[in-house]
Amino acid sequence: MIWQDIQRIRNEVPLIHNITNYVVMNTTANALLAVGASPVMAHAVEEVEEMTGLARALVINIGTLSVPWVEAMIKAGKEAHRLKIPVVFDPVGCGATQFRTVCAQKLIQEIHPTVIRGNASEVRSLLRAGSGTKGVDSRHASHEVLDEARELSRTAGCVVSVSGEVDLIVEGDKTVRVANGHPMMSKVTGMGCTASAITGAFISVNPKALSAAAHAMALMGIAGEIAVKRSAGPGSFQLNFLDTLYSIQGSDIEEYLKMQGL
Amino acid sequence: MIWQDIQRIRNEVPLIHNITNYVVMNTTANALLAVGASPVMAHAVEEVEEMTGLARALVINIGTLSVPWVEAMIKAGKEAHRLKIPVVFDPVGCGATQFRTVCAQKLIQEIHPTVIRGNASEVRSLLRAGSGTKGVDSRHASHEVLDEARELSRTAGCVVSVSGEVDLIVEGDKTVRVANGHPMMSKVTGMGCTASAITGAFISVNPKALSAAAHAMALMGIAGEIAVKRSAGPGSFQLNFLDTLYSIQGSDIEEYLKMQGL
Amino acid sequence: MIWQDIQRIRNEVPLIHNITNYVVMNTTANALLAVGASPVMAHAVEEVEEMTGLARALVINIGTLSVPWVEAMIKAGKEAHRLKIPVVFDPVGCGATQFRTVCAQKLIQEIHPTVIRGNASEVRSLLRAGSGTKGVDSRHASHEVLDEARELSRTAGCVVSVSGEVDLIVEGDKTVRVANGHPMMSKVTGMGCTASAITGAFISVNPKALSAAAHAMALMGIAGEIAVKRSAGPGSFQLNFLDTLYSIQGSDIEEYLKMQGL
Repeated sequence: MIWQDIQRIRNEVPLIHNITNYVVMNTTANALLAVGASPVMAHAVEEVEEMTGLARALVINIGTLSVPWVEAMIKAGKEAHRLKIPVVFDPVGCGATQFRTVCAQKLIQEIHPTVIRGNASEVRSLLRAGSGTKGVDSRHASHEVLDEARELSRTAGCVVSVSGEVDLIVEGDKTVRVANGHPMMSKVTGMGCTASAITGAFISVNPKALSAAAHAMALMGIAGEIAVKRSAGPGSFQLNFLDTLYSIQGSDIEEYLKMQGL
Repeated sequence: MIWQDIQRIRNEVPLIHNITNYVVMNTTANALLAVGASPVMAHAVEEVEEMTGLARALVINIGTLSVPWVEAMIKAGKEAHRLKIPVVFDPVGCGATQFRTVCAQKLIQEIHPTVIRGNASEVRSLLRAGSGTKGVDSRHASHEVLDEARELSRTAGCVVSVSGEVDLIVEGDKTVRVANGHPMMSKVTGMGCTASAITGAFISVNPKALSAAAHAMALMGIAGEIAVKRSAGPGSFQLNFLDTLYSIQGSDIEEYLKMQGL
Repeated sequence: MIWQDIQRIRNEVPLIHNITNYVVMNTTANALLAVGASPVMAHAVEEVEEMTGLARALVINIGTLSVPWVEAMIKAGKEAHRLKIPVVFDPVGCGATQFRTVCAQKLIQEIHPTVIRGNASEVRSLLRAGSGTKGVDSRHASHEVLDEARELSRTAGCVVSVSGEVDLIVEGDKTVRVANGHPMMSKVTGMGCTASAITGAFISVNPKALSAAAHAMALMGIAGEIAVKRSAGPGSFQLNFLDTLYSIQGSDIEEYLKMQGL
């Protein structure tokens, strides 16, 4: 149940360690706080393992990657794997440049993520280089990459969560579809990164990765639908989205939820 | 026509590659999305050339520069020059420290920007070291540096766009003046950086650099004037500015525009 | 008087040099602008001393520290000490990892801060390693660490400002208590970092460090109380907080102030 997960996050205030990109550090920290979690951002190789060891989930995001940061991501990810702390991996912009694709593939091999969360082009590029992500935006709809998501789920041994007009959350043969959300969400930078961070919060309180990942996408989409009703554009949407994450109730979830397959 | 440029941005959703400062990455990405473009931030030397090659404009901004980032800026800028992709250069804080002035001058020589966009003190310092920028704020009015802007335009072979109470956009002997804008804009960090990013969006769809740069400053100023009417201070102004960029119409441009010389 | 300090900031627009973390660079710059100061962020070792020399206060914050940034912090801090420019130090997350604790202790020894501003767990960890900060959140109330704050004030020879439900601002045996503020402030990332930046603004116009640090905490708390009344959650709170900093009047200070000991 989504609402149970949200209540657990609010009650337990889990520490979520993020090694993420410069663009979204502030906004994803605020989204984690709004949903009830406790975010920390730390990337120095000297401290990432110790910080991960304190956390209940690790979120790794390559949006503004560089070589030293990838080293820190690997160190933190390996420590999380050793301590059985769940890891969410967001391959931002994978497919746009060879460097991103190679780093993303290496990270998946080294850190064994619990959930890979990306857009359709990013997910496709993890299997087939040169699929042509447009910067950090998708060129494909989620349903076009269902087969790739399944294959990636099997080969990487993890849940694959593909955002799109309908989100697909895949674990082996199982597929959950979430039809919540609003196009305005694509007019705010880093909403995908926020989805990954929120997935980290859910997986920190819900050990069933498929369910946790789907619940996170449902909350994102529902909060987006509610927030957009109060918004005149992407500026006011940003604050209404945070206010909605903070104040959302179980009855809102019931009213808006469009989730199939769980 | 400004409105034609805006419509082209909204229809074509051009990818704009930004190598910019930590302070404004989020806000300039959101401004680019609000105006209709697709932003990407990437700075690793391993990928900047490939990312620039995908983009329709490159925006370089030295607000929080360091040696490795300047290297990446040069690589990206040279690739843009080679591929005839327009480049906007924002010499943030140039004149405040010798390091900034030297890096900015070197960048201009190496990357051949299409537009240099800065405040009056920054523009002056590009010609005369030691002109004394106050951190990132200008100590001079734009009209005080018209001669320097013209000289810089000739020597660097590019358009020079100087923000101020009246913006001056200069190409050789031609001068466009934009009298739009509001003092509240100086109470939000990075509005100059946003102007540079928006200039990147305009120049990606309008190959006439003088016109594109002037149109960008006009849109900034007009959106600022409209947004401030709905705002109680610089916090609400930020979101109203994004909402206005997103929803602005041709009739708003006609009503507010104060542009001469084009 | 708090109001006199605010008026001086608004009139003199002091340049505040920040070497701070990626999460809060935008929001603390905007808070400094809203209160009337002029922020600059610069961290390159090649320019930090020169930039500090232009500023009226230096704010150092280790929220996303790494070895090269700590080097720059030390260089800037020593230059500030040499030029008698006041320094505010925020040991974000100190106590969470050994790296943070060691770096924070080293920074205090090298740069002689004028004010150390942190939460209770961070302050405790500066004296006793292993006190267990939860990421960047406190596990202790401010009143639990009064003795440590006094000891730290004596050994480091500076003012210690501990945020909490009641803020404690300590200089040797003197203790100021500020009971302003609202729990919503802990739902927005970086409000502690903002408090440190605002402390920098106050100390740049008020040479009495105990009074400047207490005034800054009082303004933070009062602006928070006013802003929360207009807010539906942490998203709208952020913008209302900036609007309040920008528009606050002497009569607001008088009406809300809960400060003892000054």
